[in-house]
Amino acid sequence: MKKQYFKQNHGDPAPLSCEIEIAARFSELDPMNIVWHGNYAVYFELGRLALGKKYGMGYTDFYNNGVIIPLKQIHFDYFKSLEFEKTYKLQTLLYWNEAARLDFEFSIYNENKEQMTSGYSVQLMVDKNLGILVNKPPFFEELCKKWKNGTLRQAENK
Amino acid sequence: MKKQYFKQNHGDPAPLSCEIEIAARFSELDPMNIVWHGNYAVYFELGRLALGKKYGMGYTDFYNNGVIIPLKQIHFDYFKSLEFEKTYKLQTLLYWNEAARLDFEFSIYNENKEQMTSGYSVQLMVDKNLGILVNKPPFFEELCKKWKNGTLRQAENK
Amino acid sequence: MKKQYFKQNHGDPAPLSCEIEIAARFSELDPMNIVWHGNYAVYFELGRLALGKKYGMGYTDFYNNGVIIPLKQIHFDYFKSLEFEKTYKLQTLLYWNEAARLDFEFSIYNENKEQMTSGYSVQLMVDKNLGILVNKPPFFEELCKKWKNGTLRQAENK
Amino acid sequence: MKKQYFKQNHGDPAPLSCEIEIAARFSELDPMNIVWHGNYAVYFELGRLALGKKYGMGYTDFYNNGVIIPLKQIHFDYFKSLEFEKTYKLQTLLYWNEAARLDFEFSIYNENKEQMTSGYSVQLMVDKNLGILVNKPPFFEELCKKWKNGTLRQAENK
Repeated sequence: MKKQYFKQNHGDPAPLSCEIEIAARFSELDPMNIVWHGNYAVYFELGRLALGKKYGMGYTDFYNNGVIIPLKQIHFDYFKSLEFEKTYKLQTLLYWNEAARLDFEFSIYNENKEQMTSGYSVQLMVDKNLGILVNKPPFFEELCKKWKNGTLRQAENK
Repeated sequence: MKKQYFKQNHGDPAPLSCEIEIAARFSELDPMNIVWHGNYAVYFELGRLALGKKYGMGYTDFYNNGVIIPLKQIHFDYFKSLEFEKTYKLQTLLYWNEAARLDFEFSIYNENKEQMTSGYSVQLMVDKNLGILVNKPPFFEELCKKWKNGTLRQAENK
Repeated sequence: MKKQYFKQNHGDPAPLSCEIEIAARFSELDPMNIVWHGNYAVYFELGRLALGKKYGMGYTDFYNNGVIIPLKQIHFDYFKSLEFEKTYKLQTLLYWNEAARLDFEFSIYNENKEQMTSGYSVQLMVDKNLGILVNKPPFFEELCKKWKNGTLRQAENK
Repeated sequence: MKKQYFKQNHGDPAPLSCEIEIAARFSELDPMNIVWHGNYAVYFELGRLALGKKYGMGYTDFYNNGVIIPLKQIHFDYFKSLEFEKTYKLQTLLYWNEAARLDFEFSIYNENKEQMTSGYSVQLMVDKNLGILVNKPPFFEELCKKWKNGTLRQAENK
């Protein structure tokens, strides 16, 4: 039923995951009184950043290691509209990839666990001269090793 | 080279098309000094609305005929970043579809005709009780007939 | 030191107040890596809505009573920039007014209690034909009575 | 009738001015089917930038001279709502100021020359270490001399 955009290949560790609560802001609504479709990109980014913070691989972690992670691709499937004054769960998964890229998958659920939206994003890694990285940068390679051998822990707060 | 998301099947009329100029607003830039990826949804919508206005099939035309056309799907492929104080061309194509849906394809080009971004969107048609339409509403069916027999003309201004 | 935009006149009850935590979203940053000035309107609205929810006088409470509360005026004073990955406190005050209008005052503080931003907004009350209300609508008049005699309590959740 | 926020003192040159056309984007509308109040900051910025481009004193001109011009204050008075599929005129005035600051005044008019919105913004000038400039930077001082003696001309395109 749920759309799956990436898959866990044989030998890959399970995706990293993170769940946050989201709620539509009034400024995100459109004349139909639902969230304007383009604003879901904000929510997906909140998911990516929450997962990044949880595991020490956020925008700033990459940036402090000389790496920028621009979006290469993003995709949204809308099933049901998000409404004002309701809260939703956003589940974010990061799939394993051998290459220097980040494959995220997103699902938004309402309180009855109905899937409202799904989607995915792909990010490349570039250095500060905008040269595309072929290999994962060392700090991220290190995290990936732990991810693979099952010792990756949540980042300490702060 | 250029990604194509929909195709013109045998017997289909050629896609309707529209080209507009776009320029990044300062408020659309991110800390990398490029357009934040989520803001491209704004540009694609400008393209859809310009094509809708050109052929009399905009949001308001549908709405005045009791039909809302919510986004079902939207997809973005980012090749090169859009920058401040540059102007770009956004080409919008509407592909023929027998069903009551709108398949749009988008391409953004810089002044050297390099493709910066491409993407597509799919819209369904629903009535004001949010029931999904199986058949095209009469006013749109009428426009489609003209589209197919080659007599669809640009809408009069106003 | 702190700017004050409205004042509590003799005989007025103390302003209603509400404090929430805010944090800049990546999509709200500008090329200077700070929150783009226009996005503070989003934060102030979060403050108004939190206070409205706390006391049963939110947009939806008014709307369900046939009243819309459009902005008449909004003002921002920027002292220090808001940054990514920091959290701030937004204090919102609603000042007493005999007339059918809402006078809100806002202050944003960082973790060291430095004031980053202040501002105010004024909202009128209009009925659904956009006629300006001279008198407070009954449900709000009721709340104001309790506010004045000190029996206004926080709204029950939900 | 029209609110005036700054004034031309004796001896000051007349304000610089610029007029552009604006139109609400669908993504800027709120559930009342009017432009959400916070989005007017986008329009005022378009006005500032158009005037800056016209006279060679845009964000980029300042930036290329080592100066950033952050907002210190912004104010909006809303008289009538802006609607979708209508076009408006935004008039932007820059008032003379001896100090290193930019005092802009804005008015939005509909096709019948009714004033829909007015407001103002104040920007300071800071160097790249965020030190506030007491004196106008040389390139801007130069422009101001021409402004005062009546020889300031519109910037060449590009």
